[in-house]
Amino acid sequence: MSADIRPFRWEGTQLELLDQRRLPSEEVWIPCRSPEEVAEAIRNMTVRGAPAIGIAGAFGLVLAARRQPTDLEEAATLLRSTRPTAVNLSWALDRLLERARRGGGYPELEAEAVRIAREDEEQNRRMGEHGQSLVPQGATVLTHCNAGALATGGYGTALGVIRAAWEHAKQVRVLADETRPLLQGARLTAWELARLGIPVTVIPDSAAGRFMRAGQVDLVVVGADRIAANGDVANKIGTYSVAVLAREHGIPFYVAAPLSTVDLATPSGEAIVVEERDPGEVTSVAGTATTPPGVPAANFAFDVTPHHLVTGIITEAGVIRPPYERNLRLTFTT
Amino acid sequence: MSADIRPFRWEGTQLELLDQRRLPSEEVWIPCRSPEEVAEAIRNMTVRGAPAIGIAGAFGLVLAARRQPTDLEEAATLLRSTRPTAVNLSWALDRLLERARRGGGYPELEAEAVRIAREDEEQNRRMGEHGQSLVPQGATVLTHCNAGALATGGYGTALGVIRAAWEHAKQVRVLADETRPLLQGARLTAWELARLGIPVTVIPDSAAGRFMRAGQVDLVVVGADRIAANGDVANKIGTYSVAVLAREHGIPFYVAAPLSTVDLATPSGEAIVVEERDPGEVTSVAGTATTPPGVPAANFAFDVTPHHLVTGIITEAGVIRPPYERNLRLTFTT
Repeated sequence: MSADIRPFRWEGTQLELLDQRRLPSEEVWIPCRSPEEVAEAIRNMTVRGAPAIGIAGAFGLVLAARRQPTDLEEAATLLRSTRPTAVNLSWALDRLLERARRGGGYPELEAEAVRIAREDEEQNRRMGEHGQSLVPQGATVLTHCNAGALATGGYGTALGVIRAAWEHAKQVRVLADETRPLLQGARLTAWELARLGIPVTVIPDSAAGRFMRAGQVDLVVVGADRIAANGDVANKIGTYSVAVLAREHGIPFYVAAPLSTVDLATPSGEAIVVEERDPGEVTSVAGTATTPPGVPAANFAFDVTPHHLVTGIITEAGVIRPPYERNLRLTFTT
Repeated sequence: MSADIRPFRWEGTQLELLDQRRLPSEEVWIPCRSPEEVAEAIRNMTVRGAPAIGIAGAFGLVLAARRQPTDLEEAATLLRSTRPTAVNLSWALDRLLERARRGGGYPELEAEAVRIAREDEEQNRRMGEHGQSLVPQGATVLTHCNAGALATGGYGTALGVIRAAWEHAKQVRVLADETRPLLQGARLTAWELARLGIPVTVIPDSAAGRFMRAGQVDLVVVGADRIAANGDVANKIGTYSVAVLAREHGIPFYVAAPLSTVDLATPSGEAIVVEERDPGEVTSVAGTATTPPGVPAANFAFDVTPHHLVTGIITEAGVIRPPYERNLRLTFTT
């Protein structure tokens, strides 16, 4: 059971998504029967996590092809518009469109989407293998947001590294930033790790510095939504603060992400569009208002960590080290 | 109306406390008729903020003197035990015990408690005057937690500096960290500033770094619960992270606190006892669980910011600059 956490089920005529907004209190599966329903599920964060929304988007196109193959471009535009920051979504949609251009119909697109999902999980497992060698026996690993099985085709990126270390009998312990505003750390990372039996303690995001200063963090591993050609990393808001704090305390800061997250067409973090979401996600929690009426809030979904704060980028091809400009390019050309 | 925010009302036979747990949605006053009730109100955070709990503690002793003057020491022990980190509580209790030792009964103690509260507000206003000179015209000021009128005898320490700048016709703008777990920034700082008409935007704690990197923060001002003899500052969890980030971005980081917050008997931050509170404050928000059952959470109420990250300490006696070891001592001996 425990190894089988996945954010989606493909049922041939519909994509079923585990509603991540309702975890951990309820496990509800939402059926999506059209690209429009998939787009809405991505937008409202029923499904989230860069690789997972890429996979969901791919199945959204499969559903479009099933309905009316001529609609593909339009459906891709709709799906692409749902969330601007993660590049995996565009990457997966382009891969399906390319398959269609090469003459693929519904069965070929379905096979391609299934392949993307399977490859993603396999890549996570390879990433875990590469990454776990960086995790000392008995280490305490701090992570931010959820870069686990729920964010991917299965297994997880940052949590995949932690899982792989655990599977190598390393007695790791995880500090999970709760990750305001949507609490993906408290709700999702804690849920995954609890299911896997890996010890986890949830902390307020603002407490990460205190744990680092107390010498209680051995390394940081986070996921990514987009990695620019120079190694700058867009990831959940708060990641940048964690990276600065890690550097201040001499703690390694790793990013774990599949190569589909790397966007060589984006030269640096400055060119990454950061999604701003509804301020209501900040001004209320579980339906209860936390701020006085009329007070504005800012809700940038992501921030950008400059490459000089990144110790290494853990990918399915190995751990990429600085200089990223050169080494990311080399990874793609070899 | 706006200038009259105060966390308590002394009614001669009872202390009424504005229930800060229920702000901003409700303004409810809780009557306390005994030192036990005051102690409980401090413990459960009906009243919070280092200077405000000092004042509440003082009135708790007044209520003890009114009931049975021989109970004073016992009542002081109870009140002192409620929260360990802020030194203002002990400072205020000691001041009343000293007054009793010099032959004071109920009326003298009452007068002393009223004097502590009045002095605190006056000190805040002087602090505001000293501090506002550090705030540029049009500045964006970031603050963490609530160090406003609600945390003091009135006016506020960190927010007092901001108010004074505003009263000097400086068009300041405030970024308020929401301050998990108890959201004093989202709930209380936003409420105070909205009443005062000072522009405020609430941000997740983890977003402070993003705003600093974008060049959108001109200075940071926070309060303090205890300042050690070497200038190390205990304040709400997350303050340390903000201080590291401010240093990283070359942004001045000021602490505003009355001299009653300085504890020369505590040599450095290492000697400060940091209160650990119920993990349930982290694992639920407004009664809704945010983590899976059984997952532990850490809830350190405070952290310690080392003095080398503090640009200056704004007190009623002026802005104290490094070296703090020498300059704090000088402030007390002159």
